[in-house]
Amino acid sequence: MVPHLTTALTGPLLDMERLILGATPQIERWFRNQWQEHAAPFYTSVDLRNSGFKLAPVDTNLFPGGFNNLNPDFIPLAVQAAMSAVEKICPDAQRLLLIPENHTRNLFYLQNVAQLANILQQTGLEVRLGSLIPELTEPLKVDLPDGTSLLLEPVVRHGNRIGVAGFDPCAVLLNNDLSGGIPALLKNIEQSLLPPLHAGWHVRRKSRHFATYNQVATEFAALIGLDPWFINPYFSTCGRVNFQERQGEECLEKNVAIVLEQIRNKYAEYKIDAEPFVIAKADAGTYGMGIMTVKDPSEVRELNRKQRNKMAVGKEGQQISEVIIQEGVHTFESINDAVAEPVVYMIDHFVVGGFYRVHTGRGPDENLNSPGMHFVPLAFATPCCTPNRLANPDSTPNRFYTYGVVARLAMLAASIELEQTDPNNQ
Amino acid sequence: MVPHLTTALTGPLLDMERLILGATPQIERWFRNQWQEHAAPFYTSVDLRNSGFKLAPVDTNLFPGGFNNLNPDFIPLAVQAAMSAVEKICPDAQRLLLIPENHTRNLFYLQNVAQLANILQQTGLEVRLGSLIPELTEPLKVDLPDGTSLLLEPVVRHGNRIGVAGFDPCAVLLNNDLSGGIPALLKNIEQSLLPPLHAGWHVRRKSRHFATYNQVATEFAALIGLDPWFINPYFSTCGRVNFQERQGEECLEKNVAIVLEQIRNKYAEYKIDAEPFVIAKADAGTYGMGIMTVKDPSEVRELNRKQRNKMAVGKEGQQISEVIIQEGVHTFESINDAVAEPVVYMIDHFVVGGFYRVHTGRGPDENLNSPGMHFVPLAFATPCCTPNRLANPDSTPNRFYTYGVVARLAMLAASIELEQTDPNNQ
Repeated sequence: MVPHLTTALTGPLLDMERLILGATPQIERWFRNQWQEHAAPFYTSVDLRNSGFKLAPVDTNLFPGGFNNLNPDFIPLAVQAAMSAVEKICPDAQRLLLIPENHTRNLFYLQNVAQLANILQQTGLEVRLGSLIPELTEPLKVDLPDGTSLLLEPVVRHGNRIGVAGFDPCAVLLNNDLSGGIPALLKNIEQSLLPPLHAGWHVRRKSRHFATYNQVATEFAALIGLDPWFINPYFSTCGRVNFQERQGEECLEKNVAIVLEQIRNKYAEYKIDAEPFVIAKADAGTYGMGIMTVKDPSEVRELNRKQRNKMAVGKEGQQISEVIIQEGVHTFESINDAVAEPVVYMIDHFVVGGFYRVHTGRGPDENLNSPGMHFVPLAFATPCCTPNRLANPDSTPNRFYTYGVVARLAMLAASIELEQTDPNNQ
Repeated sequence: MVPHLTTALTGPLLDMERLILGATPQIERWFRNQWQEHAAPFYTSVDLRNSGFKLAPVDTNLFPGGFNNLNPDFIPLAVQAAMSAVEKICPDAQRLLLIPENHTRNLFYLQNVAQLANILQQTGLEVRLGSLIPELTEPLKVDLPDGTSLLLEPVVRHGNRIGVAGFDPCAVLLNNDLSGGIPALLKNIEQSLLPPLHAGWHVRRKSRHFATYNQVATEFAALIGLDPWFINPYFSTCGRVNFQERQGEECLEKNVAIVLEQIRNKYAEYKIDAEPFVIAKADAGTYGMGIMTVKDPSEVRELNRKQRNKMAVGKEGQQISEVIIQEGVHTFESINDAVAEPVVYMIDHFVVGGFYRVHTGRGPDENLNSPGMHFVPLAFATPCCTPNRLANPDSTPNRFYTYGVVARLAMLAASIELEQTDPNNQ
C-alpha cells in the first residue's frame, strides 16, 4: 500500500542512525528527564530534511495542520496521546472549542480539522468548531470529500468566556496560528487556551526557535557523542529588510555569505560532495510564502520585481521585514524520482505519526511547503516508537524512530522557547 | 483476517452500551479525576464476561500474561503507554529486570515474556530476564516457536540490590504473581519493584478486590444512571473451607443459596430468561485451578473425591481454604459456536488492546481460564479507545470501547485495593 522509499544513503547518516539506535536507553531517559522539567506543547509538527549526510528540522509548527495525512492505523496513538495531554493540561474539561484557520475553501485543511476533532472526540471530549471569520454570522456547514461535513459556528463571547451558541467550553484549542495578531475575541479569556497566545506567529520567531534548538541539539549531541551539526542547521538573521524598497540587501548578502562559508567548511571537514545553499525566509510565519533558495550571495541583489514582491508578503498579507537565513539541507529522499520530505506529528510529548510531502515538480534544494499544498501526502508506514535493534539502523522502523528523536528535539526546543517568551514569566 | 463475532445481543446490554457511549465525555472526565487521586498499576489484565444482558469483570490480574495474544498492529499503543508508566514510576531507569514465572516449558507463556520484553525495549529500556527458578545456576536459552529465543538468567543479589550477572537494573518488573509467597531474594530490595510485592496472590484476595469494585461500580453507575448490577457480579465468601476433609460445606451451601437468590431476583426484575449459576473458586490465586460451576446449593455436598481433590489445590500446590462464591455471568459471545471470552489489557491507565479466549469444547457457564491454556486467542480487531458516536452502540469499535470502560473500572478498583493493602499505609 505504501511505496518504498528510495533513499540515497551515504555513510554519515547511517553512522548517526546507528549511534542513535545504540543509545536508545540513554536518549529515552534524557527525554524523560527533560519532560520532567519542561511542559510539552499540546501538539507540534516538525518539518525535517534528510540529506543522507544530515537530518535536521527546518520548521516547528505549534498549530499543526495535516492530521488528515497521517496513517489511519495510528490514529489510536494520537487518541491515547491526546488523552495524556488533556489529563495534564485540562483534566476537568468535558467540552472543547476548536478554533481553526479562516480559510474555509481549503478542503485539505478542513479535512485536517475534521480529523483533529475526531481524535479529540475519541478522548471523550465534546468538540465544536468556533470560527473567527468576521463575516460569519450563522453556522456554516461545509461538505467534505469523504461525504462527512463540518459545522463552523461563529465564536461568541460572554464576559471573559468564549464559546459558540449554546456551548460553553472548559477549554479552547487553537488550530489558527494567529499570523494576523491576537483577535480581540481571544484576549483575556478565562478558559484554558491551548497553545498559549504567545505561541502564535505574531510573537514567535524562527530565529528564537533555532537558537533554542541549537542549545538542545548541542546537549543531546554531547550525550551520544555526535557533532551537533549533523542534526542542526546553521542560521543567521537580518532584522530590517524591505524587499520591495531594496532595503537590507547588504545585510542579507553578508549573512548569506557567512552561512554558506560555514556550510562549506563542514562539507570540507566531512568530505561531502554537494553544493551548499541557504534558504531565506520570513522569520515569523509559515505557509511557504516568502521563501527563496540562495546558492550565491549575489543572487540577493539580482531578484526581479516579481521575485521581490513574492518575498515581501507572508501569510495573510503580513509585510516581511525580519528574515532568517538558514542552512539548506538537501532532500535526498525520493519516491519514483519525486522529492519526499518527512513531517513528524506529536501530541503531548509523544510522536503519533507523520507523512512525506511528495512533490514531483521540484528539485532537492527547493522548499516544498508551498501555498495550495501541491504535494501528495504519503503516510509513514510504521509508527516512530518501534525501534528494532535487531534490524539495520536504516530499516523502516529505525529510520522513523530517528525521525521521531530529531523531531522531539525540535519540540523540546519549542517548549523551552514558549517558557522564555511566556508573558507571565517576564 | 479476524472472524466476526456472532454475539447474541438482547435489549439490556445494547441499552447499557448506548448509555455508556452517550456519556463518554462525563465518563472520561470521571476517569481523569480518578487517576489524579489514584495511581494505576504498571499493567493489568481484566477477564470480562458478556452475557448480552450483563457485562462484568470476573478476574483482575496484576501480573498479566498473554501480551503475545494482542493484535500486533496495536503494540505501538502498548509502547506509548509503557513510556507513560516508566515516566511516572521510574523516570530515571535505563536498565530493567523482568522477572517471569518459573514455568519454562510453557511456550505460550514465554512468548508473552518475549512480547513484554519487546514492548519495554521499545520504550528505550535495556531489558534482561531474571529467573527465580531455584535450580537455575547459569543462563538458559529457550527457543521460541517464531525462531527467536529468550535468555533466562539466574537472579543474583548483592546487598539490597538484585540483578543478573553484569547487569544492575534501576527497576524490577514482576511478571510472577508470587502465589507461593515472597522469595527471600525479593525482600527489602532498594530498587523500584513493580507491581509492589503486596500485589502478589499471597496477599491479594478476590473478595477484597470485588468489594472495592463494588464501590467503584456503584459510583460509576450513579454517574451515568445505570443499575450497577449490570456491570457488577454478586459475591460472597467462606473463610474456612477444606474440601478434602469436607469442612465448611454448610457455609458454602448457605452462601451459594444466598447468591443464587440474589441473581434470581435480578433476573425476575429484568425479566431475564436464563438459569442462575455461581462460580466457586479460590479467593487467592489464579490460573483456573480450583474452580467450580454451581447451579444448586446441594451440588456442594455431592462432590466426588476427584472433584474435591481438584478444588482443594490451587496454583503451585497452594492449599485452598478461602473460597469466593461469585455470580456467574453467562458467556453469550461466540465464534462459529465456540464460546469467546474477552480479556482486556492495560498498561498504566491506558487500554492497549485485548483478545478473546475462544474455546470450542465448553459451555457458556463454565470457566475458560484452565491450566495449559486450551484456547485459541483471537486479538481484538480494533483498539478500545476509538468510540464512534455515529455508529451503532454495538458496532465493533463501540463494543470494544465499552469493554475498555468496564475493564478500567476493575483496574481502578485494583488501584484502590493496592492502596488499602499497602503495608506502608497501615
